[in-house]
Amino acid sequence: MTKLLSHSLVFDQIVGILSAWGMRRNDADETASIMVDADLAGIDSHGISMLPSYQQLVESGALNLTEQHAIVSQGESTAVVDGRHNLGHRTAATAMRTAIDKAERTGIGAVAVRHSKHFGAAGYYAAMAAQVGLIGLVTTTTRTRSLVPTRGRRPVLGTNPIAFAAPSGDADAPFILDMSTSTVAVNKVKVYDYGSLPLPEGWMVDSEGGRITDSGSGYSVLLNEHGGGLTPLGSSDALSSHKGYGLAVMVQILAGALAGVSFTRTHSEAAHEGVGHFCLAIDPSCFGDGGDFRQSVSDIVDTLREEAPINREQPVLVAGDLERATRAKRRFEGVPLSEALLEEIEEVCSHSDIEFLLDDGKAVGIT
Amino acid sequence: MTKLLSHSLVFDQIVGILSAWGMRRNDADETASIMVDADLAGIDSHGISMLPSYQQLVESGALNLTEQHAIVSQGESTAVVDGRHNLGHRTAATAMRTAIDKAERTGIGAVAVRHSKHFGAAGYYAAMAAQVGLIGLVTTTTRTRSLVPTRGRRPVLGTNPIAFAAPSGDADAPFILDMSTSTVAVNKVKVYDYGSLPLPEGWMVDSEGGRITDSGSGYSVLLNEHGGGLTPLGSSDALSSHKGYGLAVMVQILAGALAGVSFTRTHSEAAHEGVGHFCLAIDPSCFGDGGDFRQSVSDIVDTLREEAPINREQPVLVAGDLERATRAKRRFEGVPLSEALLEEIEEVCSHSDIEFLLDDGKAVGIT
Repeated sequence: MTKLLSHSLVFDQIVGILSAWGMRRNDADETASIMVDADLAGIDSHGISMLPSYQQLVESGALNLTEQHAIVSQGESTAVVDGRHNLGHRTAATAMRTAIDKAERTGIGAVAVRHSKHFGAAGYYAAMAAQVGLIGLVTTTTRTRSLVPTRGRRPVLGTNPIAFAAPSGDADAPFILDMSTSTVAVNKVKVYDYGSLPLPEGWMVDSEGGRITDSGSGYSVLLNEHGGGLTPLGSSDALSSHKGYGLAVMVQILAGALAGVSFTRTHSEAAHEGVGHFCLAIDPSCFGDGGDFRQSVSDIVDTLREEAPINREQPVLVAGDLERATRAKRRFEGVPLSEALLEEIEEVCSHSDIEFLLDDGKAVGIT
Repeated sequence: MTKLLSHSLVFDQIVGILSAWGMRRNDADETASIMVDADLAGIDSHGISMLPSYQQLVESGALNLTEQHAIVSQGESTAVVDGRHNLGHRTAATAMRTAIDKAERTGIGAVAVRHSKHFGAAGYYAAMAAQVGLIGLVTTTTRTRSLVPTRGRRPVLGTNPIAFAAPSGDADAPFILDMSTSTVAVNKVKVYDYGSLPLPEGWMVDSEGGRITDSGSGYSVLLNEHGGGLTPLGSSDALSSHKGYGLAVMVQILAGALAGVSFTRTHSEAAHEGVGHFCLAIDPSCFGDGGDFRQSVSDIVDTLREEAPINREQPVLVAGDLERATRAKRRFEGVPLSEALLEEIEEVCSHSDIEFLLDDGKAVGIT
């Protein structure tokens, strides 16, 4: 069963937990608001559901919630930010704000981030640029190794996402692409495992190149990281998985190598090194009229939305449409949280000796 | 049957033809060397085989080989180039050189190109950045409409390629990704049609969303641009084709909207508007030590190359490996050109009243 909780209560709960773990109040506020935005947008894997895993990282000492990130070097259009192993949300937000500042001065700004940790959904930071009329591009490396290169047997890369945002003529509806470079994200396999559903063919391969369609074995393959894993976007050699694989390497270079994050083949080495991010902002008004640019983006996305769909119930969408609709709905109806997740959050709270705010009496509905 | 011709002879033939069409000698030299590089690298669709189609464009007046491209505006880290409807090769090379200049001064340079035409393989221009130790990213819109958006019926976007290059510790082996955002490029369907081979399921869909596997009907669907076409990378909804579709829109925004190229739903409108390109160069030494960066790229690509493959005969490759091997081979053995293509080139020559240099006596071998 799934309960609906108001997003402001979810925000308060996250702030309470992060503060109890030692994060400064202002920092906890910004981190929580980024996490709640993922829950509102329907990116459930990157919001409050991350807290149990953050707790483990805090306790193992891999995550340091009191250290402050810092800009360690900068030039006219570039900067490097050191995340100092704190959570990546505020670090990435600072990096994107810095990229935006530089873009507003020179037309383009690029910021690399090293020694960071999980930052939630990459699209959030790309969207920050679109909100002020700029183009944003954000990539990040990931801690786990889940993606098997085309022709390979073992997972060597992460799901290495790419997010890209651009403002349109409608200020409330920017184009926001946020995608892993694997066919699907790790969490999608987890969700299928929860529901005991078979995996569509092409999502995962085993160490012999065979298809994995049992979600239970698929998810354990992802947890042990020894052989087999997610396919790169494209899914098979015949359907050009070398392209998704190539994009994953591109991300590893931009968000990893550029920031000075060493490439490590294993998860445990990666935990020590932290992850890297890359934030790019481009000011369209340096290439022509900013209004014309936004209109031109609208021409593209509106044309696409107006295309006749194969199935009338499934209209042609543009990246960002689904998340926008979900956000509007959940802001009004509440954020759906499963009972299993709520129990985990309650445990996190009791472990840290703080108040659990999401108990039954607070639910605004059930789905 | 396929003849092998020396690349220098292919170069001379292209220069002869472009010069006869009115292109200035220096311009023809640079254009031909970029086209021959595609033939050497095995990107056969983007080299000398383009001449018959360029001839049609010259005769229809859509292509103007005498106009000179120009930088029409620039800032510290940005510039706009107008291609003035000449072939895109030299225009894009100028754009990337300008991006490199700016990156060497401010750390990053971005150049948008409008009113351009076909520029061959995008990877060539990205590689220009890698050759001088920088990261290069190049995208371009395309004239034809071949890509059907996820859930849609008609082709609305082009194959909108993305190229990305980064230098490694081995100066002769940069990472070079050059990929269309469709599952396969138009030419791949053409090649299957030539050989009367069935298309793998997932490359193309018809206007009802059904799979097209007959290469003959597939190719004619691509020529008429009315309904059906190439799938976006991912190939189907279940395998995340919305990601390839999203990347294609990203390219349309970066290379089209940013450069001020209007979005046109049809091919014929697009022919009038020309295509747009986008060139980005990033100087890694602004983010840390340039040598460390190249070493870090080597760590990534060497780790991948050393991974055990599923099939011993098919090693795990890294983007750019295949083209590099082909280039080494063809530089030595010659460029393979089919008899059908040679006949077309001979016709182009006789039509323009210039010497055909690739006749039987010149072949250095047969494959």
